[in-house]
Amino acid sequence: MKSAALLLLLLTTLWCPSSAQQCSFQDLVRLGSDALLKSLASAVLEKATLSCTSTSSSGSYANCPSDYSAVSCSCGNACGSWDIQSEKTCHCQCANQDWTSARCCKIGNK
Amino acid sequence: MKSAALLLLLLTTLWCPSSAQQCSFQDLVRLGSDALLKSLASAVLEKATLSCTSTSSSGSYANCPSDYSAVSCSCGNACGSWDIQSEKTCHCQCANQDWTSARCCKIGNK
Amino acid sequence: MKSAALLLLLLTTLWCPSSAQQCSFQDLVRLGSDALLKSLASAVLEKATLSCTSTSSSGSYANCPSDYSAVSCSCGNACGSWDIQSEKTCHCQCANQDWTSARCCKIGNK
Repeated sequence: MKSAALLLLLLTTLWCPSSAQQCSFQDLVRLGSDALLKSLASAVLEKATLSCTSTSSSGSYANCPSDYSAVSCSCGNACGSWDIQSEKTCHCQCANQDWTSARCCKIGNK
Repeated sequence: MKSAALLLLLLTTLWCPSSAQQCSFQDLVRLGSDALLKSLASAVLEKATLSCTSTSSSGSYANCPSDYSAVSCSCGNACGSWDIQSEKTCHCQCANQDWTSARCCKIGNK
Repeated sequence: MKSAALLLLLLTTLWCPSSAQQCSFQDLVRLGSDALLKSLASAVLEKATLSCTSTSSSGSYANCPSDYSAVSCSCGNACGSWDIQSEKTCHCQCANQDWTSARCCKIGNK
């Protein structure tokens, strides 16, 4: 920290063709932005993961943890009729529901 | 806008150890790329969210909005047999299906 | 590759107000980081997609491909009771299950 000569941001390296006159600064910036964004997006998204977990409760409702979104529900008694309330709560609709399970996902970092 | 001296991109700052000879330009670039990508991915993915919505229709089919993917289906009459067609359409398979609901998700920006 | 003068990273361009004394180097870096991260996250996440596929097997179990997460299950015989094992395997719980299908998603690159 104390000493140091920092250096610029080189996310990637931009090369000009050998004929330097084809290689204006603005071209470099523009080309760099496009190529950089593409390769950056690819590199970042390789580190992204869909992280899921399940929760289960007795009765007709099950809640996802606060930073997860409910993506599906499973219900006891073979019931396949359900809805998701407030983006985080599974509700199984059949009568006398013995248990309800919520499948919950978020975007995580590998 | 009109005047202005722009400055380079400093996403983060790279510091050399005090002995400058350990700190070649190429090392800086390489070290910077690795650390940068990791922290950048983490920062970008913190802003990512899994955004979901539900749609419902009478009958045996329900469609997701065009920029969403269907991730699950719920069916009337307690039916748990369904399939997803063309990535966006829920199809409940039981006879005399009264309603079909699709759970639809996409990646969003917080 | 062989020749070439590389150039700095310009993800975006930071402009100072015309009065140069309001525009210290550190301000530029800080402002640049905040704005850059926000616009970068938005640009990267626009290229992200939730990519899903379905697999189906006879019997009570169906597996997702190795780089996918199971987000939901569909079961033969109208059964709506299922659970997900080891994040990748759908298990339909009803007796005499004829088929099981897994809905599997991952984060992809458009």
